[in-house]
Amino acid sequence: MDFEYSPRTKEYVERLEDFMQAHILPANARFHELASQGIYPLEVLEPLKARAFEAGLWNLFMPELEEDDPGTRMTNLEYAPMAEVMGRVPWCSEVFNCSAPDTGNMEILKRFATPEQKARWLDPLMIGEIRSVVGLTEPDTASSDLTNLSTTILPDGDHYVINGRKWFSTGAKHPNAKLSIVFGVSDRSEDADPHRKHSFILVPMDTPGVEVVRDVPIMHHHAPEGHCEVVYRNVRVPRDAMLGQAGDGFMLAQARLGPGRIHHCMRTIGQCELALELMCERAMERKTFGKMLADNANIQDWIAQSRMEIDAARLLMLQTAWKMDRDGAKAARVDVSMIKVTAARLQTQVVDRAMQVFGAAGMTPDTPLSYLWTWGRAMRFLDGPDEVHMRVVARSELKNAKSRHGANAAHFVAPH
Amino acid sequence: MDFEYSPRTKEYVERLEDFMQAHILPANARFHELASQGIYPLEVLEPLKARAFEAGLWNLFMPELEEDDPGTRMTNLEYAPMAEVMGRVPWCSEVFNCSAPDTGNMEILKRFATPEQKARWLDPLMIGEIRSVVGLTEPDTASSDLTNLSTTILPDGDHYVINGRKWFSTGAKHPNAKLSIVFGVSDRSEDADPHRKHSFILVPMDTPGVEVVRDVPIMHHHAPEGHCEVVYRNVRVPRDAMLGQAGDGFMLAQARLGPGRIHHCMRTIGQCELALELMCERAMERKTFGKMLADNANIQDWIAQSRMEIDAARLLMLQTAWKMDRDGAKAARVDVSMIKVTAARLQTQVVDRAMQVFGAAGMTPDTPLSYLWTWGRAMRFLDGPDEVHMRVVARSELKNAKSRHGANAAHFVAPH
Amino acid sequence: MDFEYSPRTKEYVERLEDFMQAHILPANARFHELASQGIYPLEVLEPLKARAFEAGLWNLFMPELEEDDPGTRMTNLEYAPMAEVMGRVPWCSEVFNCSAPDTGNMEILKRFATPEQKARWLDPLMIGEIRSVVGLTEPDTASSDLTNLSTTILPDGDHYVINGRKWFSTGAKHPNAKLSIVFGVSDRSEDADPHRKHSFILVPMDTPGVEVVRDVPIMHHHAPEGHCEVVYRNVRVPRDAMLGQAGDGFMLAQARLGPGRIHHCMRTIGQCELALELMCERAMERKTFGKMLADNANIQDWIAQSRMEIDAARLLMLQTAWKMDRDGAKAARVDVSMIKVTAARLQTQVVDRAMQVFGAAGMTPDTPLSYLWTWGRAMRFLDGPDEVHMRVVARSELKNAKSRHGANAAHFVAPH
Amino acid sequence: MDFEYSPRTKEYVERLEDFMQAHILPANARFHELASQGIYPLEVLEPLKARAFEAGLWNLFMPELEEDDPGTRMTNLEYAPMAEVMGRVPWCSEVFNCSAPDTGNMEILKRFATPEQKARWLDPLMIGEIRSVVGLTEPDTASSDLTNLSTTILPDGDHYVINGRKWFSTGAKHPNAKLSIVFGVSDRSEDADPHRKHSFILVPMDTPGVEVVRDVPIMHHHAPEGHCEVVYRNVRVPRDAMLGQAGDGFMLAQARLGPGRIHHCMRTIGQCELALELMCERAMERKTFGKMLADNANIQDWIAQSRMEIDAARLLMLQTAWKMDRDGAKAARVDVSMIKVTAARLQTQVVDRAMQVFGAAGMTPDTPLSYLWTWGRAMRFLDGPDEVHMRVVARSELKNAKSRHGANAAHFVAPH
Repeated sequence: MDFEYSPRTKEYVERLEDFMQAHILPANARFHELASQGIYPLEVLEPLKARAFEAGLWNLFMPELEEDDPGTRMTNLEYAPMAEVMGRVPWCSEVFNCSAPDTGNMEILKRFATPEQKARWLDPLMIGEIRSVVGLTEPDTASSDLTNLSTTILPDGDHYVINGRKWFSTGAKHPNAKLSIVFGVSDRSEDADPHRKHSFILVPMDTPGVEVVRDVPIMHHHAPEGHCEVVYRNVRVPRDAMLGQAGDGFMLAQARLGPGRIHHCMRTIGQCELALELMCERAMERKTFGKMLADNANIQDWIAQSRMEIDAARLLMLQTAWKMDRDGAKAARVDVSMIKVTAARLQTQVVDRAMQVFGAAGMTPDTPLSYLWTWGRAMRFLDGPDEVHMRVVARSELKNAKSRHGANAAHFVAPH
Repeated sequence: MDFEYSPRTKEYVERLEDFMQAHILPANARFHELASQGIYPLEVLEPLKARAFEAGLWNLFMPELEEDDPGTRMTNLEYAPMAEVMGRVPWCSEVFNCSAPDTGNMEILKRFATPEQKARWLDPLMIGEIRSVVGLTEPDTASSDLTNLSTTILPDGDHYVINGRKWFSTGAKHPNAKLSIVFGVSDRSEDADPHRKHSFILVPMDTPGVEVVRDVPIMHHHAPEGHCEVVYRNVRVPRDAMLGQAGDGFMLAQARLGPGRIHHCMRTIGQCELALELMCERAMERKTFGKMLADNANIQDWIAQSRMEIDAARLLMLQTAWKMDRDGAKAARVDVSMIKVTAARLQTQVVDRAMQVFGAAGMTPDTPLSYLWTWGRAMRFLDGPDEVHMRVVARSELKNAKSRHGANAAHFVAPH
Repeated sequence: MDFEYSPRTKEYVERLEDFMQAHILPANARFHELASQGIYPLEVLEPLKARAFEAGLWNLFMPELEEDDPGTRMTNLEYAPMAEVMGRVPWCSEVFNCSAPDTGNMEILKRFATPEQKARWLDPLMIGEIRSVVGLTEPDTASSDLTNLSTTILPDGDHYVINGRKWFSTGAKHPNAKLSIVFGVSDRSEDADPHRKHSFILVPMDTPGVEVVRDVPIMHHHAPEGHCEVVYRNVRVPRDAMLGQAGDGFMLAQARLGPGRIHHCMRTIGQCELALELMCERAMERKTFGKMLADNANIQDWIAQSRMEIDAARLLMLQTAWKMDRDGAKAARVDVSMIKVTAARLQTQVVDRAMQVFGAAGMTPDTPLSYLWTWGRAMRFLDGPDEVHMRVVARSELKNAKSRHGANAAHFVAPH
Repeated sequence: MDFEYSPRTKEYVERLEDFMQAHILPANARFHELASQGIYPLEVLEPLKARAFEAGLWNLFMPELEEDDPGTRMTNLEYAPMAEVMGRVPWCSEVFNCSAPDTGNMEILKRFATPEQKARWLDPLMIGEIRSVVGLTEPDTASSDLTNLSTTILPDGDHYVINGRKWFSTGAKHPNAKLSIVFGVSDRSEDADPHRKHSFILVPMDTPGVEVVRDVPIMHHHAPEGHCEVVYRNVRVPRDAMLGQAGDGFMLAQARLGPGRIHHCMRTIGQCELALELMCERAMERKTFGKMLADNANIQDWIAQSRMEIDAARLLMLQTAWKMDRDGAKAARVDVSMIKVTAARLQTQVVDRAMQVFGAAGMTPDTPLSYLWTWGRAMRFLDGPDEVHMRVVARSELKNAKSRHGANAAHFVAPH
């Protein structure tokens, strides 16, 4: 359980921080200016991507790579502080080819795609040439229970035919989005094993029948790349577009979510650090009723509370990354659920306090806080609502308790 | 302390509810369709306003009126359930000429304006012909302490010259916004009494130098009527545009805020009722892991908790309205602070639970929840941040304690 | 919904407050001195009871009485402020013949006892000659679900024979405790209606087989009158000791709990007022790091928060009392559940803050706070745990939602 | 930042757990039986101490020792899991010579006592022959600010004369308590440096004028060893009883508190694990309304929440121990404050949930929960109230923010 950052990690963090100062932060205002006009800021991003690629700050999230693949080959534990740094500027992950859902998509393509599928999709993703989408959540079903999902992927001669409606397909509005990885029912037989009924299939975005019907704002916020509603109407793809075997959907969904979930949590820690920094700085600038905000004991309590919560959450996150590195994502399943719930709550809590110190300005797009706060709330749904993850943790705990039954009898004291 | 709704109130509530069903709700989708295109939905509102005027559902918020003024002459206590009903559809207050900041503006004009000022501004406001704005909060000052505000209103011959920057001027984007009531420093002398240095002045929106520079979104949400940043550059108005006497600013600001604050709270109660209704209905429609959401004990706890909080908050709100009717806004100052804090928190809490039951859909504009939640958060700043109101309550409590000093000695038990 | 205290109520409150000042508070130290030595302070109580009886401050809790019965015949709403006042000194309810479980016992005896039962038990209870006990909760069953209770009350010739173990029988250690009203299974047949299987029976405390085996401390606190564990071993009572009909147990338990539950809540409000008063007074006496505690914004927030919570809870309590007076305890069932949960939480929260202001002294018996805090925690179990009451509230809310299904469709906005 | 337990630690934990199973838990009931009769259970403790000494499970808390001293020489990080295990049975620390306040007292004696003082007091403490007391907190002062403390330690010829009243002197009722280390003002001159005015002095408990006036219960709980009020009336001790130099009091108080504070936190983690285990086990045993408690989603949420909070707090505690080992107690001051606040809150929260699952039984001494809960509340005062520690954390954070001022400007986006 050694969470110390290695010399290599420290050096990389420093390089990344330098890059942020030199290149990302100076571009921040321009990014938002374009985005607010509805223009995807490729003119900001493309030169930065080239520069990051050159600087070797690329594919930081991917622990294992083929010999020729560009990337840093960091463990999850090593990636954690990098993701923290990137999290401070929400749009910048793309610069380092580390943005969702590409990260998760690259991971399952790497593990489960055929050589042909890899050549067509993984290779351009690895160098940031294209971007990708995942089609999972559906508007009219309680999607936290994957067995509820109803999009169909049905064989028809040499093809599969896809019909359904997905939403929250992040990135579908991105000008470079070329691939959608779609989850759906491939076996409709009554007696099918409910965990072998679904599959993932690779759908080129330009296939006839794929329609991005709208960009769904999250708490009124339109992400530049979109969290889109996408309709699939009689979309035909050849048989070899299936990812893994038909029926592998559940297994792939599980494999896909582990590291992706924790990446969000890592960025959260960085975003909460930023919010705490801003809160402290603001509290030392503002005076009301004859006193600096920072001299009020309630605001000091908020600051202290935030520091305690952030530090505890970071350690939980590092422990999860470390366990994932050592034992694999599956073994760390309960840990992932724990940090997922913890991080999402952390973000709404810490940023809420920072906003309150900022006053009305905290609600405006002039500060990063309103976005961080609403995004924190969204994180309580992302990759499964809190309640699903709490259930995972509780069931694991109860299972342990069962195996220990009776062991604590001596702690009870007979009446005397 | 009789909060029972009178027969008259009950009859009015019923008429209002019928109006909502018959006219407001059927127009809801169209309103949002236009608003989302950046068009102020006058085509929806104007016919509804005419109809409401005719139906006598007009100026419901105004307890006292001149003989000829249109309106219902309801007390604050009588208005409470009306505001609850209107709160359920956030845009509809305008239909009944009950929307902020017109309500507060009409109140101070009624009490403090000269006959000429009334004829020019109050009369058209009373019949919904024009709308108005208030210029209070400033972007670069901690505005919760009004002594910090720095816009200047300085005499220059027969005129006052106004210079400054205001934001969160609600309604400045409204096509009918004709009047801005601006707060600023009218006495810059060193030895001026800090509570007699400021004034309110009446500024026609079309005066040269008044510029609406942008609409500031609140948590990414652009209100159709705008929460605007407005710059006043060498704006000249004649001397008789002063509201009350020079130096009356503080006194007017206090007078203005009392009832206005509680109107927000009344609407909150209605909005929380709506959120609770939606939460229950959704919980009975959705199934995960083989069980309806409504059958889960955690969701039942959220429902019960919400009901308890709403009922308690409503009673606190009714008590404040009743006290305001009986003793005046000034005497109810501590009560207003209490309900203001309570209501804003209530809204974020109850709506947060409802969103969680809705899953991802709760974050989208397809449901009213995301707006109600972010607006609830904004309410924690509106008319003063929570902390300022808590301070008012605490100081009142400590003052009482001082007068009682020593009375509780017998509750302490000497060691034995 | 008129909660205003009537002139009669105000006069009674004043008389009661005078009595507290003149007689109860001066006896407070002596009461605790004796109690801490394990002596039930009858020498303190009996003269005070005589005085209260004479002063007409007697049986304040009982709304309806026979012509000759002593008492004030107050409604629940009128009783509320009286209970608040009494609550401030936890032991003093007995002085006014208003202490649990006598109050609940008198109520069901009054409604359901035979003339003979009344003469034997109710009459001496009404004049404070004896005290009584209720045997409901059992140590080895989840007693919040009454169907779990397993003590047996089985017919045997002209008698019933009672076997079982009860605990938290409040008052069983009181020197005047003469009667135990015991709840148990009177019908063990397989096909018995689960809500007609149980009965209440009247058991003289001196019946052979009744054994008070221990006084169970609540959070280490031994109540002077005891919360006792009582064993019933082959206890034989004549047939006419049955209260109501065999099988009436459930119905009587429901009837018994309504007003009793709300009495606790009324006292809670008074106790929270006391805690808030003490907190304010202490905060103005103590200085740390060069500043009075009362001048710290965090402590001001605690004070304000407490005031807001107390006022809201009091209104909820008054509304429940008012509804109970108007519509009966059964109709107010959901309200009773709401105030029960609200009050218990209130007490732990408000007193917790007060303790923190007192520092270590708050944990000692020198202040009333440690008792009020642990008792507040106990209230979360008393008369049913929070979760059972939340369930009642949620089910009522869901039932309402069902009847309204679809009515809110227009609040959803079609995607555009 | 390597928190992995070393093979040596793991072996020791196993040995300690075996000892607990074999010797401590079987003695638990007898310990409480004696303690509840007011007898200090030396007959239970002394044989266990001899056995633990023999087994080498002795002075586990003490990182550095002289060559001949008995003990394990564990770092704070190594001690952490040992303290967790011991924490599960609150009275058992004494068996391993690891109980407060002896631990803190041994530490300062070791660092600051003269050889003569060591021979007289430290040596018998090290082998568990005697026990000791610390006299710090005073009943009539806000003791969280040490400058408020007013007991005097004044030179008079060859002696110091001590006058004052201390309370919460843990262990003063212990039959082996021989030494009290008393904190007081040794320099009353007006112009004295406020941080050089106080001293610690070594007072034999049998010195004339030392009187243990009462044992102060904490939330009604009388600790077997007592948290006593001790009066010092003209207590004369020779000059060489001074610990360190006159005026060293502050410095010694700081040195004393570091590790002692974190020992409490370590035990808390173990106690919370126990509470969570008991909660899970109980939830699988109890059925209400046709369902096991463990199958209710609200109870599952409590379980999951507890697991998340415990794991995060443990990591924070381990990090503090690790930092203390590496950089010293002073460098870890802010960390100690953070874990101190976190742990105390954790304990009340986790145990509160467990109690609720236990129902009324949770409030009784039959389970360990009521003690753990009230003790958790006491921990919010122990070694300084939460608010003092929050202040330490906030001031450190604000200091950092000051040094960084302006660095975050690019995160703000100019209005567009």
